[in-house]
Amino acid sequence: MGKIKSVGILGGGQLGLLLSQSVARLGGATAVFDPDKDAPLHRHCAQSFAYPFNNSGQLRAFRDLSDVLTYEFEHLPVQLLEALKDSNAQPDFRPNLRALAVAQDRLSEKIYLRDNNFPLADFVELSGANIGQSLREFALPCMVKTVRGGYDGKGQSRLTSEGELDDFLSRELAPNTVLVAERLVDLSKEVSCIVARSKTTEVTMPVIENVHVNSILDTSVYPSSLSAADEKKVQDIALAVARSLEIEGLLTVEFFIDQAGTILINELAPRPHNSGHLTINAFNLSQFDLLARILLDLPIAAPQAVSPGAFAMANIMGDHYSEEGTLDLSIMTAKKSFAGYRDLVLYGKREPRQARKMGHLVTHGGDAQEALDRAKTLRKQLAGGAKLK
Amino acid sequence: MGKIKSVGILGGGQLGLLLSQSVARLGGATAVFDPDKDAPLHRHCAQSFAYPFNNSGQLRAFRDLSDVLTYEFEHLPVQLLEALKDSNAQPDFRPNLRALAVAQDRLSEKIYLRDNNFPLADFVELSGANIGQSLREFALPCMVKTVRGGYDGKGQSRLTSEGELDDFLSRELAPNTVLVAERLVDLSKEVSCIVARSKTTEVTMPVIENVHVNSILDTSVYPSSLSAADEKKVQDIALAVARSLEIEGLLTVEFFIDQAGTILINELAPRPHNSGHLTINAFNLSQFDLLARILLDLPIAAPQAVSPGAFAMANIMGDHYSEEGTLDLSIMTAKKSFAGYRDLVLYGKREPRQARKMGHLVTHGGDAQEALDRAKTLRKQLAGGAKLK
Repeated sequence: MGKIKSVGILGGGQLGLLLSQSVARLGGATAVFDPDKDAPLHRHCAQSFAYPFNNSGQLRAFRDLSDVLTYEFEHLPVQLLEALKDSNAQPDFRPNLRALAVAQDRLSEKIYLRDNNFPLADFVELSGANIGQSLREFALPCMVKTVRGGYDGKGQSRLTSEGELDDFLSRELAPNTVLVAERLVDLSKEVSCIVARSKTTEVTMPVIENVHVNSILDTSVYPSSLSAADEKKVQDIALAVARSLEIEGLLTVEFFIDQAGTILINELAPRPHNSGHLTINAFNLSQFDLLARILLDLPIAAPQAVSPGAFAMANIMGDHYSEEGTLDLSIMTAKKSFAGYRDLVLYGKREPRQARKMGHLVTHGGDAQEALDRAKTLRKQLAGGAKLK
Repeated sequence: MGKIKSVGILGGGQLGLLLSQSVARLGGATAVFDPDKDAPLHRHCAQSFAYPFNNSGQLRAFRDLSDVLTYEFEHLPVQLLEALKDSNAQPDFRPNLRALAVAQDRLSEKIYLRDNNFPLADFVELSGANIGQSLREFALPCMVKTVRGGYDGKGQSRLTSEGELDDFLSRELAPNTVLVAERLVDLSKEVSCIVARSKTTEVTMPVIENVHVNSILDTSVYPSSLSAADEKKVQDIALAVARSLEIEGLLTVEFFIDQAGTILINELAPRPHNSGHLTINAFNLSQFDLLARILLDLPIAAPQAVSPGAFAMANIMGDHYSEEGTLDLSIMTAKKSFAGYRDLVLYGKREPRQARKMGHLVTHGGDAQEALDRAKTLRKQLAGGAKLK
């Protein structure tokens, strides 16, 4: 009887779900560990653990039926996970836990990048009694961010005036708060690059260009508007960071490009990434397919675009739902389906809360602008019933 | 809290697995009922029932957590399933159980098609004491098939000579055996057409051309080599059968085209079909996406091809595996991945037995021939370690 390999996934959100689909399509099994019993992957996994991450007994049970472990988000207790390894460091975490530790803490990530001579905006640690003094010395304009746990713009303050700075400093901060202030970049573009590394092969995916609204990813498009030279620079930096962190799995590197054309790393995610959803439709191997192959010890190759032109992804947020909690899918009843339509994925989250990622759609177009226009038009139609702010 | 709809799937093979992936990508849950505890979908379903189909208690438990029921193969006990409906005929089976009853029995299927004036090859029922006489009267050449339970060429005998006829009649048949003899078609082409029908919308997918080897589907390609007029005729017949059977869900109709160009229905499958695997890669809505939408009460639309050119699917059989039970995936390590590669799906079956469907691959090409050549070349490379018969 052939062995069915099992991939243990920490986190059961949409990234875990889409990863599990790629694993299943290669004959593998998955197990999921997520404290939220309503996390979508729990519904699509026979081996499902809905316990707090500090439940070591259940974590060990989860480990014991996994041949390899991975994670779909960063906010995990690295020490507890380290303790899961036996004396042979089995099972493997892919990517390794050092990459997770670096990426889950904004300060350690920035220090790591600076110490290894990767380009990033100036930053300063803010902690203890002299946060105010440090921040005034660092000067404006800057972004102040929590070091841990922030995502989708949560825990971020943009300070561009003395008034904003005074307001910020007048707030009461919890004792032992650690923050990081980073120089506000005069932004021209935001891009991301996903690197896949197996024991033997490195694949750097094409660059994807992103637009954030209220610090949450709104749209992504491939190809990016970067020059070929800049595309290459971005890919080279992403690959170099992945090598430096000895990634086996995926590393997504998000970049700022400033008005002067300077390329700066914004942040790292050692996992599949929201901006990579369009890789399912644009390439013959998606980010999830590449990670699944690495986890199952199957060979990886460079993805190829499945057609000329451009692919755009638009996130569907809780804000796009009607007051009754629905999307208007009537556009999909048209005899001729929506031009350039490629995909609609809904994540199976019960509550369409404001600023919550509920799904995404992907469109194709002759060029990036057409693909993006189509994605936004389609999203607007799906949101027909919503009173968008 | 939003409601998560649950789809109950009878059968947990690759068709059920791929359907469940489309359901999951629309936010739905699935439950699976399959007596084989090793059926792949059990591994990817939180609600998993591995009991014989005559376990009414477990069937009822499965029904109770499903909002709608469907099936991925035909050899199911229709009467037991009928008994699952309550006085309001809930939950819905999509497609309905009458379609299942017609399609699961070759004889009832042929009588249904003949009685409703659909084109098919001449046939005769063979049963009781006078099988020999009936068969000799029907005359050669013909195919004799079991009425129930046959698939992938199992239970079929091709009779083209008196010697083959005598051999066949000299075999001992179980008492109460019912067979059907059908006129052997002087085959030019085999094609299939998948129809999707919801309560409000009908979608007829483009025709797919198929090649069988040893009565098992070997390759499928889109577009078919039919003339536009014949493509239309095939689609019209498929749609007419789906309407006649009041299908809500999918109906796949397989056709023979004989040397004179006559279009004859071969058989019906009220479910996703092996020949439709390439719809995942060729169209912006696959057969599984369409069925998932119908099951979840979401609108359907006509699928559009995602690029010009052709798409081919090649089945990967147990025969393609090495003696050690492996495929050679080293082709996928090439720096430049295989030209036209679109998909590789492995079904997670433990034993690569001869004539067992283990997976499939999909390729793209400028035309049907190129796509097919690429699929066969890639399959040959994957089977590098196998001693193919």
